[in-house]
Amino acid sequence: MARLIGVLGGGQLGRMLALAGYPLGLRFRFLDPASEAPAGELAGHVVGGYDDPEALDRFAVGLDVVTYEFENVPVAAARRLASRIPVYPPPAALEAAQDRLIEKRFFQRLGIPTPRFVPVDTRAELGAALDQIGLPAVLKTRRFGYDGKGQALLRERSDVERAWEVLGGVPLILEGFVPFERELSILAVRGRDGTMAFYPLVENQHREGILRRSLAPAPRWTPDLQAQAESYATRVLEALDYVGVLAIELFEVRSADRHHAPGDRLIANELAPRVHNSGHWTIEGAETSQFANHLRAVLGLPLGATAPLGYAAMVNLIGTLPDPATVLAVPGAYLHLYSKAPRPGRKLGHVTIRADDPRSLQERLEQLLSAAHIALPHP
Amino acid sequence: MARLIGVLGGGQLGRMLALAGYPLGLRFRFLDPASEAPAGELAGHVVGGYDDPEALDRFAVGLDVVTYEFENVPVAAARRLASRIPVYPPPAALEAAQDRLIEKRFFQRLGIPTPRFVPVDTRAELGAALDQIGLPAVLKTRRFGYDGKGQALLRERSDVERAWEVLGGVPLILEGFVPFERELSILAVRGRDGTMAFYPLVENQHREGILRRSLAPAPRWTPDLQAQAESYATRVLEALDYVGVLAIELFEVRSADRHHAPGDRLIANELAPRVHNSGHWTIEGAETSQFANHLRAVLGLPLGATAPLGYAAMVNLIGTLPDPATVLAVPGAYLHLYSKAPRPGRKLGHVTIRADDPRSLQERLEQLLSAAHIALPHP
Repeated sequence: MARLIGVLGGGQLGRMLALAGYPLGLRFRFLDPASEAPAGELAGHVVGGYDDPEALDRFAVGLDVVTYEFENVPVAAARRLASRIPVYPPPAALEAAQDRLIEKRFFQRLGIPTPRFVPVDTRAELGAALDQIGLPAVLKTRRFGYDGKGQALLRERSDVERAWEVLGGVPLILEGFVPFERELSILAVRGRDGTMAFYPLVENQHREGILRRSLAPAPRWTPDLQAQAESYATRVLEALDYVGVLAIELFEVRSADRHHAPGDRLIANELAPRVHNSGHWTIEGAETSQFANHLRAVLGLPLGATAPLGYAAMVNLIGTLPDPATVLAVPGAYLHLYSKAPRPGRKLGHVTIRADDPRSLQERLEQLLSAAHIALPHP
Repeated sequence: MARLIGVLGGGQLGRMLALAGYPLGLRFRFLDPASEAPAGELAGHVVGGYDDPEALDRFAVGLDVVTYEFENVPVAAARRLASRIPVYPPPAALEAAQDRLIEKRFFQRLGIPTPRFVPVDTRAELGAALDQIGLPAVLKTRRFGYDGKGQALLRERSDVERAWEVLGGVPLILEGFVPFERELSILAVRGRDGTMAFYPLVENQHREGILRRSLAPAPRWTPDLQAQAESYATRVLEALDYVGVLAIELFEVRSADRHHAPGDRLIANELAPRVHNSGHWTIEGAETSQFANHLRAVLGLPLGATAPLGYAAMVNLIGTLPDPATVLAVPGAYLHLYSKAPRPGRKLGHVTIRADDPRSLQERLEQLLSAAHIALPHP
C-alpha cells in the first residue's frame, strides 16, 4: 500500500505512531516547528510552524491522510489541509478539545457529568464565579493548557489574588474542585465505518499536573465502571463523527456529589483527540497498541482487539533518565526513550512493566522504582 | 544513551532491528549496496558494497557497535571494522556460517549430529561421494546459498548430470538426505557477559527452499527436545564466544539413523549468525522479540525474557501481497510489510497470528490462509 501519512506534531506520540506504522508498510511525514522533534529521527520532517501556509503546503504534497498527535494545532491549519486531504480525527474534535469552556459545554450537552464550571474573563467575574462555585476550586486558562500548566488550585480566599496575577488577562474558567477517589481514563477508537472499540479503564496518578504512572486494567475495575466510561466515550465519538483514538480523563468519586445523578461515579475532566500518555501501556500490554489502532482507524482498516495481555504498569521518565541496564534488568520491563534532551519536568521516556498477575506486577513495579530511583506520589 | 548502531545489510531483518531499537533510544546506520534497501526508509543508509573500503570507512564513522543481518557479508569487511569498533556476533561466526563444509565440520567437532557429508570439487569427486553417501542426497554449493538457492536434490542417478551442470565449477558439498519428520529451529541469544537465553523450539515448513510458515512453540514440544536443542546451541555459542541472536535449523528424525547416537532426534542442518525468519513470531508472540534481544546482547544490556505469550503462527508473504484489510480482519493477526517491490519468490512481508490456545490459533490460521489466498505446502 505504501501510503504516506502526514502527522501534525513530531513529538514522542508521533514517533510511536511511526514505529507502529512501519510494519504496516506505511510511510510518514511530520510537521513540527522544532528541528529536534523526536519523530524527525525516523521519518520525513518538515520544520515549520502550524500556521505557516507555505510549510503546510510543503507538508501536504502527496499525503494520503493527515492526522495529529498534538491537540493545540490551529484548527485553521487542520481545516486548510482538510479541504484537500482527509484529516482524521475531524477538525471539530480539535475545537472541542482546545477550549475548556467549549469542551465542558460539549460534555454537558451529551449528558456527561463534569465538574461545575463558570467562564471568567475579568477579576469581577472571578469573584462572582467563586461565590457560585465555592472553594476549593480550580482556575484554568481556557486554552493551551497541558501537563498542569495554566492552572491554579484555590484552596482558600488568600489563594485568589496570586492566581489572578499569574493567569488573569486571558479567557479563564473556574471549575469546582472534585473530591475524587482517583483518576481514571478511557481510551476508545472509532473506525471510518463507525465501528468502535474500547480499552479497559486505566488508573492514573499525576503529580504537579504531569502523569506519573498508569495501571491497566485499573485496580478494582468493574463492568459497571467500564460501561459508564464506554457510554461517555460512545457519545463523544458519535457526536463528533470521530475517527481515530480518543482519550477521556475521568475522576472517580465515591458517590456522585449533589450536582450529579446518583449513579454517576465518573466525572469527565477532559478529552484528548489523539493517542494519549495513559495508553502507552498498550504497546506491550494489549493485543493491539493504541498507535496501531489509531492508524488502522484513520486508514479505514479493521480495528484490532483491545483486550489486555495480563496486567501492565506504565511509569513516565521525567526530567532525568535512569541507566537503561537497570531498567531492563527488571523482569517484564520495556524501556521507551523519546530521544529528547533532559530538562526538568520534561517527559523523556516511559517504562512499561507487564506481568501475568497483579501481585507480580506490583513486585516488579517496586523493583523498577527502587532500581531506577523513581519516586511516585503517595496514592 | 543515543548509541549509534551500524548494521551490515539493510533488508527486512535490519528494518525490524531498527524498529526494535528506536524505543531503546538507539540510532541506526545501514550499509547495503541496494539504494532501495528496506531499512533505508527509516534510518541512515550508506549505499555501497561490503567490499568497498571507502564505503566501509564512511559507514564506520562514529559507530558505537557493528552488527550484521546478512551472513554473506565478506569476513574481511567484518574484520576491517572489528579492528576499530566492536563487531558482534564475532566475525568467526560469519566464517563458520558462510561455508557449508566449515559449518558441518564445526558442528561435528562440537559433537552435534549433522547429515553425512563429503566435499566435492570435481565431477570425479561427485561420483566417489555418491558411492559413499548413497541416494537420495543433496548437492549444495558450499557458499552463498540461501532460500534454497544453490542446491539440488538427487533422488536417482539420472538427476546427477543435470545437478552437476547447474552447480559444478564452484566448491560443493554432497549431503546425505535426512528422512526427517519435520523441520525445527532453535533461537538462542548470548549476552556480552556470557548469559544465555533460548526461545522455545519452532516448527518450520519450507517449500522450494523458502520458509513458508512457523509454529511457536512447536507442536508436540517436549522438554527433552528443547534440552537437546539448547545443548547444541550452547555448544555453538560458547565455542564462538558468541554475542547476539543465533538460529540453528534442525531436522527432527523419528529415531536417529544408524549414523547417529540413538538418543539424537535432532540433526543440525545449518546455523544463521543473526536474527532469523523463524523468529519473527517473537515480535508479538514472546515477552521480548529476537530483535530487541539481539540489540540488548550486542550493547551489553541485560537480556529480556524469551517466554512465549500463548501460541503463535508466522506466515511469510512471498511474491505478492494480500489486501491488508483482509489480513487485519483476522483476529490476532499482525501484518508486517517490508516495503519491497513484489517479485516472484521474494519475501515481501509476514503475518503473525497469536492466540491463547492451539485450537484458536489453528482456526485463525485457516481463516488467514483462506482470506488472503495463501497456499501452504501439505505437511
